[in-house]
Amino acid sequence: MKRVSCVVVLLFASLFPRQSAPGLGAQAQQPLRIIALGAHPDDAELKASGVAALWAAAGHKVKFVAMTNGDVGHFESAGGPLAKRRIAEVAECAKILGIETQVLDIHDGELMPTLENRRTLARLIREWQADIVMGHRPYDYHPDHRYTGVLMDDAAVVVVAPFFVPDTKPTVRNPVFMYYSDNFQDPKPFTPTMVVGIDAAAEKKWKCVSAMPSQFADKDSWQGRTQQNVPQDDRERAAYLLDIVKKRNAAVAEQYRERLVALYGPERGKKIQYAEAFQLGQYGRQASIDELKKMFPGVQ
Amino acid sequence: MKRVSCVVVLLFASLFPRQSAPGLGAQAQQPLRIIALGAHPDDAELKASGVAALWAAAGHKVKFVAMTNGDVGHFESAGGPLAKRRIAEVAECAKILGIETQVLDIHDGELMPTLENRRTLARLIREWQADIVMGHRPYDYHPDHRYTGVLMDDAAVVVVAPFFVPDTKPTVRNPVFMYYSDNFQDPKPFTPTMVVGIDAAAEKKWKCVSAMPSQFADKDSWQGRTQQNVPQDDRERAAYLLDIVKKRNAAVAEQYRERLVALYGPERGKKIQYAEAFQLGQYGRQASIDELKKMFPGVQ
Amino acid sequence: MKRVSCVVVLLFASLFPRQSAPGLGAQAQQPLRIIALGAHPDDAELKASGVAALWAAAGHKVKFVAMTNGDVGHFESAGGPLAKRRIAEVAECAKILGIETQVLDIHDGELMPTLENRRTLARLIREWQADIVMGHRPYDYHPDHRYTGVLMDDAAVVVVAPFFVPDTKPTVRNPVFMYYSDNFQDPKPFTPTMVVGIDAAAEKKWKCVSAMPSQFADKDSWQGRTQQNVPQDDRERAAYLLDIVKKRNAAVAEQYRERLVALYGPERGKKIQYAEAFQLGQYGRQASIDELKKMFPGVQ
Amino acid sequence: MKRVSCVVVLLFASLFPRQSAPGLGAQAQQPLRIIALGAHPDDAELKASGVAALWAAAGHKVKFVAMTNGDVGHFESAGGPLAKRRIAEVAECAKILGIETQVLDIHDGELMPTLENRRTLARLIREWQADIVMGHRPYDYHPDHRYTGVLMDDAAVVVVAPFFVPDTKPTVRNPVFMYYSDNFQDPKPFTPTMVVGIDAAAEKKWKCVSAMPSQFADKDSWQGRTQQNVPQDDRERAAYLLDIVKKRNAAVAEQYRERLVALYGPERGKKIQYAEAFQLGQYGRQASIDELKKMFPGVQ
Amino acid sequence: MKRVSCVVVLLFASLFPRQSAPGLGAQAQQPLRIIALGAHPDDAELKASGVAALWAAAGHKVKFVAMTNGDVGHFESAGGPLAKRRIAEVAECAKILGIETQVLDIHDGELMPTLENRRTLARLIREWQADIVMGHRPYDYHPDHRYTGVLMDDAAVVVVAPFFVPDTKPTVRNPVFMYYSDNFQDPKPFTPTMVVGIDAAAEKKWKCVSAMPSQFADKDSWQGRTQQNVPQDDRERAAYLLDIVKKRNAAVAEQYRERLVALYGPERGKKIQYAEAFQLGQYGRQASIDELKKMFPGVQ
Amino acid sequence: MKRVSCVVVLLFASLFPRQSAPGLGAQAQQPLRIIALGAHPDDAELKASGVAALWAAAGHKVKFVAMTNGDVGHFESAGGPLAKRRIAEVAECAKILGIETQVLDIHDGELMPTLENRRTLARLIREWQADIVMGHRPYDYHPDHRYTGVLMDDAAVVVVAPFFVPDTKPTVRNPVFMYYSDNFQDPKPFTPTMVVGIDAAAEKKWKCVSAMPSQFADKDSWQGRTQQNVPQDDRERAAYLLDIVKKRNAAVAEQYRERLVALYGPERGKKIQYAEAFQLGQYGRQASIDELKKMFPGVQ
Repeated sequence: MKRVSCVVVLLFASLFPRQSAPGLGAQAQQPLRIIALGAHPDDAELKASGVAALWAAAGHKVKFVAMTNGDVGHFESAGGPLAKRRIAEVAECAKILGIETQVLDIHDGELMPTLENRRTLARLIREWQADIVMGHRPYDYHPDHRYTGVLMDDAAVVVVAPFFVPDTKPTVRNPVFMYYSDNFQDPKPFTPTMVVGIDAAAEKKWKCVSAMPSQFADKDSWQGRTQQNVPQDDRERAAYLLDIVKKRNAAVAEQYRERLVALYGPERGKKIQYAEAFQLGQYGRQASIDELKKMFPGVQ
Repeated sequence: MKRVSCVVVLLFASLFPRQSAPGLGAQAQQPLRIIALGAHPDDAELKASGVAALWAAAGHKVKFVAMTNGDVGHFESAGGPLAKRRIAEVAECAKILGIETQVLDIHDGELMPTLENRRTLARLIREWQADIVMGHRPYDYHPDHRYTGVLMDDAAVVVVAPFFVPDTKPTVRNPVFMYYSDNFQDPKPFTPTMVVGIDAAAEKKWKCVSAMPSQFADKDSWQGRTQQNVPQDDRERAAYLLDIVKKRNAAVAEQYRERLVALYGPERGKKIQYAEAFQLGQYGRQASIDELKKMFPGVQ
Repeated sequence: MKRVSCVVVLLFASLFPRQSAPGLGAQAQQPLRIIALGAHPDDAELKASGVAALWAAAGHKVKFVAMTNGDVGHFESAGGPLAKRRIAEVAECAKILGIETQVLDIHDGELMPTLENRRTLARLIREWQADIVMGHRPYDYHPDHRYTGVLMDDAAVVVVAPFFVPDTKPTVRNPVFMYYSDNFQDPKPFTPTMVVGIDAAAEKKWKCVSAMPSQFADKDSWQGRTQQNVPQDDRERAAYLLDIVKKRNAAVAEQYRERLVALYGPERGKKIQYAEAFQLGQYGRQASIDELKKMFPGVQ
Repeated sequence: MKRVSCVVVLLFASLFPRQSAPGLGAQAQQPLRIIALGAHPDDAELKASGVAALWAAAGHKVKFVAMTNGDVGHFESAGGPLAKRRIAEVAECAKILGIETQVLDIHDGELMPTLENRRTLARLIREWQADIVMGHRPYDYHPDHRYTGVLMDDAAVVVVAPFFVPDTKPTVRNPVFMYYSDNFQDPKPFTPTMVVGIDAAAEKKWKCVSAMPSQFADKDSWQGRTQQNVPQDDRERAAYLLDIVKKRNAAVAEQYRERLVALYGPERGKKIQYAEAFQLGQYGRQASIDELKKMFPGVQ
Repeated sequence: MKRVSCVVVLLFASLFPRQSAPGLGAQAQQPLRIIALGAHPDDAELKASGVAALWAAAGHKVKFVAMTNGDVGHFESAGGPLAKRRIAEVAECAKILGIETQVLDIHDGELMPTLENRRTLARLIREWQADIVMGHRPYDYHPDHRYTGVLMDDAAVVVVAPFFVPDTKPTVRNPVFMYYSDNFQDPKPFTPTMVVGIDAAAEKKWKCVSAMPSQFADKDSWQGRTQQNVPQDDRERAAYLLDIVKKRNAAVAEQYRERLVALYGPERGKKIQYAEAFQLGQYGRQASIDELKKMFPGVQ
Repeated sequence: MKRVSCVVVLLFASLFPRQSAPGLGAQAQQPLRIIALGAHPDDAELKASGVAALWAAAGHKVKFVAMTNGDVGHFESAGGPLAKRRIAEVAECAKILGIETQVLDIHDGELMPTLENRRTLARLIREWQADIVMGHRPYDYHPDHRYTGVLMDDAAVVVVAPFFVPDTKPTVRNPVFMYYSDNFQDPKPFTPTMVVGIDAAAEKKWKCVSAMPSQFADKDSWQGRTQQNVPQDDRERAAYLLDIVKKRNAAVAEQYRERLVALYGPERGKKIQYAEAFQLGQYGRQASIDELKKMFPGVQ
């Protein structure tokens, strides 16, 4: 089924001159709906809580979904008690950002690209009636990240098929799929389509990170145990680990400065301190840069 | 098991001078056997019915296999009734082309790279004693397409192992595996090895497409609902959707014109209006271009 | 969980100046622990028995693991009897090399990237407390090879998580993951990080290959039946098939001569006759070339 | 874990004299919560809509769950369109009965006793905070019925374990599990624990059955095609098929008349025309007959 | 779906007086179609080749299907070579009996009650348009036997659903399902419905057993190694092991003599030396004894 | 394969007079090897640590295996930390009893009757070269218990097949399979074959139970939270919960007193205070009562 269309679009873009997007204008008036997937309860938060806060502030609807319950990534606690703590942490974080959140009850380290999970994800995207779906590249470093990417790819087309999961309404049209930035090179490096300056939301992002001590503050948190030179004092440790997150967001801005300048113009683009970066996936709707600029907050 | 040989062949091709292919000459006298996989009942038809008709006309044996029954890709009908309709459509199409066809009873959107499916595919290739196996790249846009590609890759070696599915005779030697063209770029774009001019078979291809109204004519067919500016009138709609298919085959010729010229010579290569393109897969037999030219109809 | 660290390391290597590796000095005094995975009982032997013999001779601890029992890759025997024969062959080979060996009881041609297999592999790496893990690229030619690569990638992070397979102690730190060389180009060719001259261990490697007649000598062995011009006489056939292996190790040296020279210096690098090549994987610890040189035998 | 308690209760009931159930008194004031599982969208309706209507009328909370979407059991329609029609039919039926309803999106004929389904069911029971769970015996005639029974058995204990599906609150105590009546003898016949006279709700039940024409009225409905002597006229057919259902409820009353008399006393018990029968399962809470009588509507 | 009918039939047999089976008379003129399942290639042969030979001689159509390829049950050989030998043995046996045969390529000891296998079996029954399906009880001694029984039970209803495996025609009506005799007591012993005297076909049965030396004659066959006091001489061993089979068929006659007398009358019933016994399953069509008598060869 | 023998033994026991068991005499001199399965780390301990201590004291070899790691059955802790604690507890218990122990790393509540688990169990039984295998009935109350029973049944035959898991030596002959006592009635109640007086080992059993505070002493242990009237004081609670275990062992003696008298004679049988009871399974070796008496400690 369903494969002539997109190819034709690519080959004969000129044959079907895109109407000057009258529907889009109409749509621009109603809030966008974004769903952002993370492998664990802190991944969407790390990769997209800046843009999420900006979207939310502009009246758009954002939902974060953790594909696993994060019940393994700690050096002292695990299982149900850790899962429950993390559900509470991302709920707190969502409150700060002004968005919704959900944590799937799949064991950390056990996310597989099964048909059941494909159906679950397709249903989530359809229920949210998403315009934009975000998630990890299938080349990211952790199997749960990679299989989040695979599941996202595998859901990309079927979300519009009325009879794939017939108990939920399909999306009106194919959403745009965007990957989070990462630094992996095989088989291909991340190439930013959109880089979003998040300075206006940075405080919210840092507050959100601070609301997840099981990840970024505990003596036995993953970061607390795997980073180098981590302070012993609780307060110092939290500040130190938050600082690493800040530096990473600054590094994204630095690494993709050229793209920031292209998107925001030189004046604004050069000033941006913190950024989040996203690559347009090839399997969902192939929105043009102009259309994407209108969809991402603050870019134009 | 079994991995020294091909590597050695690649590295030391000169150490083992290929005999001037006496077997091939012998083989040339007997019909080639081709099996072409599609994810849904219309995919092999779209990608390879031109070359299939040419092969059939030259006395070779072609079989199309749809890996799923296509029971989801419609906006009004689904399930068994749609599956049965599609089985009948591709049967009609096969009659037009002069080939055989089979539809696996796997739900549309649910093809997975399982061991069961690997065995099923290996058995199909062995039973057909295929010289050439065709299918989607594992980077195509729909999960059923991608997993058709994965299954094809996963079957590539085991079809020659006598005891993999011991109830069917292995192929005498490793078949050639060819991917269909697509326009996806990640992680790597399609690179044509063979581009086949199908002008002599174009009418048969259009007739075949017209024999699949559940895909290319119904008001609620996938194409009818996802293409833009589709006419309301039944007859006009069918013509309009067929025209998109024609344009796509013309676009393949245009996009890979250089390769057509290289394969057919400038005179013939420049005149070709409609084409189908195929890339040699890296996991099956690494046939030389000269050998491939002899295998593909009309190329030389 | 756990994704800030490595990225930060990549981006801000200068922010966290690596201590002059005092731990490494301490570690250098204790033997390295290497685990090398093969898809079948002969793969690790073909790809890494030279370096393994060198490591073993230097007092380091090496273990080969065959992920399947190789019970299909023969033209006359199969199933349990073949599996038992192959277990005995690699045991003999391990004795020659001075290493340990293990064969997982998974049918040849049936290795899948399941959660069970991920757990099994993570447990093997943890039990061995591996510093280095070796295996096939996920792009190698046989599905069992590719899924060995996928499983290796999928185990890379979780081997350090204390509660992933809580019945085994996690590794003290993330091991280095290295891929074996192959000649496949899609989606990306192999790029050697380390190329190891194995001349000093070559005799052991040939002896090891000769200890596996079910693979390299039987009239109905895979090599005996798929290579060209194989002699009929038993002794001649064994010599002929061993010679192919020798030539392949010579070809690796030739193909990556430049890298050999870079690693060993021109004088030693140019003289090396036989070599094995390895690429640093992107998912485990990102050791520097200097550190890797200290880990690989004879390189410095 | 957790196995001493119930056995002790059975063996030493006298050692732990049940307190005169103060909690139960308290509980009696709050509505009971019942969840009734059917294999397909019409099974809970056929087996328990009488008692459901009585419970609902008394202020208790009832939910029907169809474990599959029933997308195969028709002779003319199937797949998504049939599933959607059936979802609408049971919703209409639930409105008539005054209960809630849900249809799981699992293909008809494909319900398997997987871990995923066990988790789904445990979550449904926990979310509903069920006092009573009803469903098919694992010996019923259709695989979807039998595996509904197996899943029910498999969920019976884990619904109270706080960390089994930690995203949902466990039930306060183990629910009572009840099987629907059937006439199968292997390996053991159904033995009624509770038989409920449903005369007061019979009209609602017949109305509910009539609200499911895809099951009980269509010319090509399952009943319409598999029953004998089915009338051709649409209206007559619906009446005829409804009559079979009525007779079946009358037959249950007749078959278990003795038990009705025991439960209701001879006067009331003999007069009951229509009944539904339930057997206490051995894996959930072993409520006494006296307690069950207080739970079932109209019995005392 | 589909559950009212059979229950109603049981409860209200009198309401729907069976027509004096005019269809059956018609049917009697056309050959019956029987499909008999064995877990391994020799099970249907052991349990039903007597009755199969009688049916075949009377012009009915019989097919034996081995659910696994028997590639483990030998003490010297295994895997593909054993599987191929056994396929050849049952083919020889089928020739002797005058029936068809098929061996599924599933590893011995690995048959699972999966959805794939349910579909495979349903398709086999539908393709054969079976009137009678035979197989092991789900309580038999070997997991492959038990899961053959489970799969048979799970296929019993869906073979008549047009859209379950829509690529094959459903059976016209529900077949009769019959279990082979065994001596297991848990949870319930075998109870014979039909016991068939096979004296007229006994020689064919012994010849068929003798055609399977990998099972009943090899020094390292399962029987040759697990029976007691097995002779060393090849010819004596074969005779000894065949004799055990003969005695077992005599024991069936003895054990169910009463039933033989009831079915054949005292004169014939008492004389029968060898017999095969079958129990009517509860999930398929509930044929009456009179109808069954007409279906089984030689009973009346 | 392999089904004539046992049936023949049952039917024709007289045809093959058992030799006066010379092998058994020989075997009696060498220690028996027993493997006892529990669903969770405390189940084998509860059901069989009395008999295990007696066997161990007599020089026989006993191993307990927990099929899951028990990482859910607690009200405060879960996941890896709980699993590790329980591994340590059963290790302590094994030390007290003089036996070996192993805990499989499968999540509590997630044991499934998969092929992988069948292989794992078959391998465990073969490695232990078990004479006796013990475990739960497939009718016990918790899914992990029931599937332990199913896996035990499914392993019963294949442990003697040389090529089922060819990496481990098969057992010399089929072990005896024994089920633990339980009080479930569906589809059939437990019937004791052997009841063992454990008074001489009772103190060891109580000490073993006391060594598992996560199960029998913690305020938030399963027992601590699900039993009634549990004391608040830590020491009192432990004593109270241990007392329940003691009473249960006394109840087994009482419930099966008749069998104790039959096995031990009236004098000894009547005096026994604590007992454990076992039922001979129908799928393993059908040892006679006399032979079983010789195998069980203290019975004769």
